[in-house]
Amino acid sequence: MAMAGLYRRVLPSPPAIDFASNEGKKLFIDAIQAGTMEGFYKLISYFQTQSEPAYCGLATLSMVLNALAIDPRRKWKGPWRWFDESMLDCCEPLEKVKAEGISFGKVVCLAQCAGAEVQAFRTSQTTVDQFRQFVKKCSVSDGSHVVSSYHRATFKQTGTGHFSPIGGYHAGSDMVLILDVARFKYPPHWVPLTLLWEAMDTTDEKTGQQRGFMMISRPRRDPGLLYTLVIV
Amino acid sequence: MAMAGLYRRVLPSPPAIDFASNEGKKLFIDAIQAGTMEGFYKLISYFQTQSEPAYCGLATLSMVLNALAIDPRRKWKGPWRWFDESMLDCCEPLEKVKAEGISFGKVVCLAQCAGAEVQAFRTSQTTVDQFRQFVKKCSVSDGSHVVSSYHRATFKQTGTGHFSPIGGYHAGSDMVLILDVARFKYPPHWVPLTLLWEAMDTTDEKTGQQRGFMMISRPRRDPGLLYTLVIV
Repeated sequence: MAMAGLYRRVLPSPPAIDFASNEGKKLFIDAIQAGTMEGFYKLISYFQTQSEPAYCGLATLSMVLNALAIDPRRKWKGPWRWFDESMLDCCEPLEKVKAEGISFGKVVCLAQCAGAEVQAFRTSQTTVDQFRQFVKKCSVSDGSHVVSSYHRATFKQTGTGHFSPIGGYHAGSDMVLILDVARFKYPPHWVPLTLLWEAMDTTDEKTGQQRGFMMISRPRRDPGLLYTLVIV
Repeated sequence: MAMAGLYRRVLPSPPAIDFASNEGKKLFIDAIQAGTMEGFYKLISYFQTQSEPAYCGLATLSMVLNALAIDPRRKWKGPWRWFDESMLDCCEPLEKVKAEGISFGKVVCLAQCAGAEVQAFRTSQTTVDQFRQFVKKCSVSDGSHVVSSYHRATFKQTGTGHFSPIGGYHAGSDMVLILDVARFKYPPHWVPLTLLWEAMDTTDEKTGQQRGFMMISRPRRDPGLLYTLVIV
């Protein structure tokens, strides 16, 4: 008697390396020692599971906003102000995202609406070397994080377009750690940066545009402070 | 004009050390090199936020069950079988937990009901040295995890009784890493093991019983296999 539904998927490896495997741990420790996991600590502290099959973009963004300690300026539950997917409703109705997922452009819109500073690039507007520079830059501090929008097929994974944050960089092997928010499906895993570039350099059939990546940071000017100045 | 609600709390330090601080990172790297963070990789991969102010016990358990790759044997969302707090409803009605929280005994009941193997100890039944042995044992493998039930006041934290998993051990300083599931309030933090013992050695006023800890493991015999044998 088969049980209904699915319990995870086997991670195709290669090309990916499971974060919790011996090889994954070795990459992790090497990268820590090289100073390219400095963004990991904050980001992993807020690692979350997408709460709906089509909420990868919302979960990714919520995780990054919490890691950057950006205040949503409104209550989530009880007395607490906190980001989860349900708080990210200012660019696209949640019901629509639930049914259809979300585009690259709308995730950029949501990040800005939440008060973050965003630099976004479709693969057509940049190069793999520039992408590597952004990944490196984010890996050596905890002030900015890279979000990637890619197609899973490049990694032989099931599914199509997906969003997840990048949790760190291993320079020796030129690999990045994907903190996959579909945690019910795949564990966090390392992939070659050039392969992630290929996976981003694909077309989103819904919008007809290429995928890409964005670097999300705390705003240079605190919107809270600005607000205070304005109302005084 | 004050904004409604709260954006996190400042972690009282000492006694706690923020995981993402320089001192916290140093403890982490030392502990990795000493081999006492082996449970961390799986556990952190499923770190989650309690979705209700009184769901600390449910979020803690859900995290540990996912880290142990225990199959809930029923669907969560879409085709996926996966634990979140809403799946943990077999020992106490969720509405009651939402309103009142959950006792140590009911968390043990839920872990067993979910198919895990549990060894549970109230502080009155064991010693700080035995507790340290369990923490050490779990820190060197990823087959079992320790869940602690404690009172926050011992750490000068706001709030009362709380549950969270232990993410690792630093032998040199005798400190444990608490993966606090109230992530909207405090980040993950290191605390002295003996102080955590004191925080567990307190009385839950609702039940009149002492708090304590439990070690949760994958079942020795796969319940799926057992089920198959029974229905054949």
